[in-house]
Amino acid sequence: MHLFITGISGFVGLRMARWLAQRGERASGIYVADRPPPDLGDCWEVDLLDRDALATALERARPDAVLHFGALSHVGSSWKRMADYFRVNVLGTENLLDVAARASSPAGGALPVVVASSAEVYGAVPEDELPIGEDRTPAPASPYALTKAAAERLALARGAVVVRSFNLVGGGQAASFALPSFARQLAAIQRGDAEPVLRVGNLSARRDFVHVADALAAYRHLAEHGRPGEVYNLASGEAVSIRHALDRLLALSGVTAQIEVDPERLRPVDVPVLAGDARRLRELGWAPRRSLDDALAELWQEARQEETAA
Amino acid sequence: MHLFITGISGFVGLRMARWLAQRGERASGIYVADRPPPDLGDCWEVDLLDRDALATALERARPDAVLHFGALSHVGSSWKRMADYFRVNVLGTENLLDVAARASSPAGGALPVVVASSAEVYGAVPEDELPIGEDRTPAPASPYALTKAAAERLALARGAVVVRSFNLVGGGQAASFALPSFARQLAAIQRGDAEPVLRVGNLSARRDFVHVADALAAYRHLAEHGRPGEVYNLASGEAVSIRHALDRLLALSGVTAQIEVDPERLRPVDVPVLAGDARRLRELGWAPRRSLDDALAELWQEARQEETAA
Repeated sequence: MHLFITGISGFVGLRMARWLAQRGERASGIYVADRPPPDLGDCWEVDLLDRDALATALERARPDAVLHFGALSHVGSSWKRMADYFRVNVLGTENLLDVAARASSPAGGALPVVVASSAEVYGAVPEDELPIGEDRTPAPASPYALTKAAAERLALARGAVVVRSFNLVGGGQAASFALPSFARQLAAIQRGDAEPVLRVGNLSARRDFVHVADALAAYRHLAEHGRPGEVYNLASGEAVSIRHALDRLLALSGVTAQIEVDPERLRPVDVPVLAGDARRLRELGWAPRRSLDDALAELWQEARQEETAA
Repeated sequence: MHLFITGISGFVGLRMARWLAQRGERASGIYVADRPPPDLGDCWEVDLLDRDALATALERARPDAVLHFGALSHVGSSWKRMADYFRVNVLGTENLLDVAARASSPAGGALPVVVASSAEVYGAVPEDELPIGEDRTPAPASPYALTKAAAERLALARGAVVVRSFNLVGGGQAASFALPSFARQLAAIQRGDAEPVLRVGNLSARRDFVHVADALAAYRHLAEHGRPGEVYNLASGEAVSIRHALDRLLALSGVTAQIEVDPERLRPVDVPVLAGDARRLRELGWAPRRSLDDALAELWQEARQEETAA
């Protein structure tokens, strides 16, 4: 299968491209200027808002399906950069859907589009209503969530498949996210490059973590088998506190450090617990195969290598 | 012409219904529970999210066009009630568009829908780029603006007419908006019911004020002549400071009061200047006919009557 990936230089896009190549499948896609293109597939530097360039890239690639990962995706920064989040996440998605609707798959039918959304669209959900099913009405609690919830409406109206991923975690993730940040701080402490103080945000928040490798399999599966106009939760079903994940990471690394709450890492609005019901994806044959420990081991290994290289 | 109005008990909806009746035209519509229905036309208490009830109301009314005013519309409160704003403004608009698309006009064609949006979608615009034309990319700077900008995309995709109103002002407006609030405070001071202190927000903000009666004419005109899938600015073209409007109101009322800035009235993010170019509407034959002083006189008269009645 040949998948066209927007945001192919991003955390999920890049891993998807590499994984497809390993499987003997094909990836192509677009990336933005501030990220280097991956070392594989046909890749073009294209702004999601540039309709002509996007159409040209899609015509050249002639993929079997599109995976739309390209987005601004940091909840915290969305409060300060609301217009950018609207432009990229809403107008960019609309543009991609327009262009894809004018293309057709090599098989002749409509080109399937899978739009990556986020469990953040659900907002705060009472604990006794967890895990969250896809029929729950979105109740976004941050500008990021609002833009994703709006993009979903546009996508569903066009018959795209929408995937609400819960917290993806694994190697390649930016240090602006909690767990990769912890791993890098611990690696710096281990090497003696930093004082033994670990700066953290809200440790009591509980999240439903999914290993990014399991997510890749889900996106790939939905590109082929997803029902047009349907929403799928991508989740493990379990809520684990950031504190627990940090404890696992500390055990795994063997590093001891003083934990210090950094007010800058506390989000203006935080959702205390999230856990999703991925029944629809499971019914299509998907299931998570990797543990949170697997993901943390990846992050730790990567952080140590980065520090060694630095 | 028979217009079906969502939010028919709101500031603009109610005035529209009364104005149509005065003209010998017809109004019908829906309202929400916390507002009493107007004393005219066929009105139903219907939640915009209730698809069946909405479809039933529209079938009974059989209007020539729909004016969609029903929305949560306070920038300040949208920061605290983001999910409600998403639900009503985005999902409610989507629902209305879906239902209207299944209806047809008595003439047999598609039912025209005019969606009221807001100049807030433009966000902060450099002063040398004013007045704002409709081709400018929206850059929302508040959750309210984000939900309106998202609703616009859904509306345009469906071939609805989108109207970006700048600051509508006139009798019937809630005291949560600056100028009606000033008028009511001044009336209370005049009657001796309050100390001579006027509490204000950001007086330096400059806005493009449109008399609500001119706005009614614009919406009515667009219901008949608006181009499907087109955006229209509803604006005077001039930016006037809130301070100037307050000075006019003080002169008009003859009341003297100490001006006090109330931090609660300062919005988290404020757009310093707004002025719109309504060329498209003017080309269709519309022009503003009433002044800001006319609108302030309405507010003042209304405020004095309310205080007398109280």
